[in-house]
Amino acid sequence: MSLSTTSLQDFLTHCRGVVGDEFVVCDDAGMAPYLTDWRGRFTGKAAAVLRPASVEQVRLLVAACAQWRVPLVPQGGRTGLVLGSVPDASGDAVVLSLARLNRIRAVDPVNRTITVDAGCILQQVQEAAAAEGCLFPLSLAAEGSCSIGGNLSTNAGGTAVLRYGNTRELCLGLEVVTPQGQLWDGLRGLRKDNTGYDLRDLYIGAEGTLGVITGAVLKLYPQPKACITALAALPTPEHALRLLTLMQDRCGASLTGFELMSGFCLALVAQHFPQLPKPFAAQHGQYVLLELSSNESEPHAVALLENAIGAALEQAIIDDAVVASSIAQSAGLWQLREHIPLAQAAAGKNIKHDISLPVSRIAQFIATTEPLLQQAFPGCQLVCFGHLGDGNLHFNVAPPDGIGHEAFLANQAAVNRVVHDSVVTFGGSISAEHGIGALKRDELAHYKSAVELDLMRAIKAALDPLGIMNPGKIL
Amino acid sequence: MSLSTTSLQDFLTHCRGVVGDEFVVCDDAGMAPYLTDWRGRFTGKAAAVLRPASVEQVRLLVAACAQWRVPLVPQGGRTGLVLGSVPDASGDAVVLSLARLNRIRAVDPVNRTITVDAGCILQQVQEAAAAEGCLFPLSLAAEGSCSIGGNLSTNAGGTAVLRYGNTRELCLGLEVVTPQGQLWDGLRGLRKDNTGYDLRDLYIGAEGTLGVITGAVLKLYPQPKACITALAALPTPEHALRLLTLMQDRCGASLTGFELMSGFCLALVAQHFPQLPKPFAAQHGQYVLLELSSNESEPHAVALLENAIGAALEQAIIDDAVVASSIAQSAGLWQLREHIPLAQAAAGKNIKHDISLPVSRIAQFIATTEPLLQQAFPGCQLVCFGHLGDGNLHFNVAPPDGIGHEAFLANQAAVNRVVHDSVVTFGGSISAEHGIGALKRDELAHYKSAVELDLMRAIKAALDPLGIMNPGKIL
Repeated sequence: MSLSTTSLQDFLTHCRGVVGDEFVVCDDAGMAPYLTDWRGRFTGKAAAVLRPASVEQVRLLVAACAQWRVPLVPQGGRTGLVLGSVPDASGDAVVLSLARLNRIRAVDPVNRTITVDAGCILQQVQEAAAAEGCLFPLSLAAEGSCSIGGNLSTNAGGTAVLRYGNTRELCLGLEVVTPQGQLWDGLRGLRKDNTGYDLRDLYIGAEGTLGVITGAVLKLYPQPKACITALAALPTPEHALRLLTLMQDRCGASLTGFELMSGFCLALVAQHFPQLPKPFAAQHGQYVLLELSSNESEPHAVALLENAIGAALEQAIIDDAVVASSIAQSAGLWQLREHIPLAQAAAGKNIKHDISLPVSRIAQFIATTEPLLQQAFPGCQLVCFGHLGDGNLHFNVAPPDGIGHEAFLANQAAVNRVVHDSVVTFGGSISAEHGIGALKRDELAHYKSAVELDLMRAIKAALDPLGIMNPGKIL
Repeated sequence: MSLSTTSLQDFLTHCRGVVGDEFVVCDDAGMAPYLTDWRGRFTGKAAAVLRPASVEQVRLLVAACAQWRVPLVPQGGRTGLVLGSVPDASGDAVVLSLARLNRIRAVDPVNRTITVDAGCILQQVQEAAAAEGCLFPLSLAAEGSCSIGGNLSTNAGGTAVLRYGNTRELCLGLEVVTPQGQLWDGLRGLRKDNTGYDLRDLYIGAEGTLGVITGAVLKLYPQPKACITALAALPTPEHALRLLTLMQDRCGASLTGFELMSGFCLALVAQHFPQLPKPFAAQHGQYVLLELSSNESEPHAVALLENAIGAALEQAIIDDAVVASSIAQSAGLWQLREHIPLAQAAAGKNIKHDISLPVSRIAQFIATTEPLLQQAFPGCQLVCFGHLGDGNLHFNVAPPDGIGHEAFLANQAAVNRVVHDSVVTFGGSISAEHGIGALKRDELAHYKSAVELDLMRAIKAALDPLGIMNPGKIL
């Protein structure tokens, strides 16, 4: 689908007329920051990077792409983990950066909505909501860099899904430029709207393959009055599941976080970050980081949490627990969780999986899959942690002691096959919150049914008949 | 698209081979119960009523419809309000009743999911969840008759949306027979799954025009330990909005119901149902029915509600309030709300609107639209009530005193135009929770943008190229 040099120059001249010369970037140095993925594993090529500043400019640029048949790769904060927002190696595509569309358009504290440009950084959205006394609950490691358009396009998850849902559940309305360069204004701030097909949720999670999200109406919540954190120590994942049921029964929607961490994970953190707190003297098999929020008061949250933990101790579900008594202590407990990926990186590269399972099957999944891995790769080390309340595990596999991390990466495809086969056996998903992008495209094709793939292809062909939207991603 | 008599007989013979003679109903008396809508406004015709008992039978019947080019109308409990589940007057279509697919397939209290056949009655699902100590929160007037497949196909709302969302938010996975007679197994019980396009939400709310939903995995919640009801009296809808903000800030997710009722509504109820409670001696402009649920205890719920009501009285947001002190008193307060439609029916037919608005604009919408109606139809009477917490009003218009209800119905199109034009001006929706069906198809075409209609048509053509799925509905 390469253009002739003359046609490409015509196209770029047209684009310069839309956004101005300086925002059509064609030199290698200027384009470089837009071509490499977040984890630095892949660098693509592009014919140009286009940097529109308004929805109308996006529309005109996409219309030009359609007219000249130029593939385009929408790009937000470029923090994705599956190569969804960088171009391939062909150099045929242009990158369409949404970074300059970064206005908070409106905050409505009574409707509890915020209307934003797609290029707004997640943290900027959180802060604009907080300034009006509201909570925008989406929260994830990259929140200082990722854009809300990217969060929507990947249906991002994070640490508050248990209470507030994924990005999909936080979005009421969307504005999208179609692959034909038309504007769909679906910017509705409505809790109920049953007027035809759910286009919104089709664009959410489509990773830019069906259109370009340019704006969104997002849900806000009341700011909780208090937020309390605790760390529980327990023997097995099975006990963690029992704790989850107990906490949900007693605390309902006040339970806002429930993160599982294996003993191996925390030992790895202690090894690489010895300055972090060590809440327990003894070693335990598993740990759960709990967070409770209250719209009432801090004493309410503390009492609720302490009573629940008391019951869990009494029922021998947990062996021990600490409740943070200050914001600093709470932050310290969260740091343990957040440093797991950093400790892994410090130890060396490993083979990562972002999987989900029915919550009730997680313990059995771990108990079944770890021996399968040991059988195939004797001595390999499992770094298993994640959002247990959502059934989402980061199920990472590190080399046996004495085997180099880089060398072990040669087993990636074989390790993936063991883990993903087991995931599918247990009714799970091979991509819980990261999406498919280019990285997991072959895995998707391997595991999805022919019926489902055909349905997806029919939708793609119907909405993007020229096939110019983020080619090579998902399908 | 009429078949020749010979072809039709071949088709029906084939269907009898699939489901057995007795479940291919062709006689007028046998078909009659399947052809008239719930409110008795329309009776269609059908070539036959097909009554499969298994997913595989559904698949074979739909494949036969595709082969013989016979249009089909999927039907659940037939309680819809927009003529979405009855055939048109042509007699070309067959009705595909899902009523015999009524098994609860599985309940998983740890994963908090229930897997059901599409033909299960909503109440049956609620009861199966309760038997395992869980709550399936979808609740609406027709729950004793409506089927979960119909709830999904119309994305039903109801009285618990404020806390738990619409049916869409309560569904994790779907099983669908495509218009080609293929089975899409999307029965996943996962909170997170980012593996390609969101087919699930495309089928939800599609009113049977894209495929036949045969099964679903639904979300369950912990059963609240207590549920408290109160009725607040206040002067205006503006005050009701202030009360909503106050309640949400103080109670968060414990606020599970927030229903607005105008003084005129309750006067109508008192007139037609004098035996029902009259909680206040004085007349008030507006009333709000509040419901609070607690996962902790009844004293917790009572204290939370009484403190919030105390604050609302202190801030002069409400004039008066009663808190139910028993289950019987609570039921009595809900009866006031539930008897509004019955009182309306007793008074005579009126012109109904099921609309939604940004919550923050509701007071201004009512204040603007009522004078527009009075100007166009002097003396007309507004019966305004609904799920204020969701921005959803049932905004019904009754004739002026002295004008017959039937005669006033002649103004239906003109009244709709006034109300719906105003809804659109305020950024609202002309169908909040009932859907489009055949009844609102022309209104949809009138109000939706050409871009949105084209996107919907493209999806319809891609997934149902023969156009056999529930023709004449939505598009």
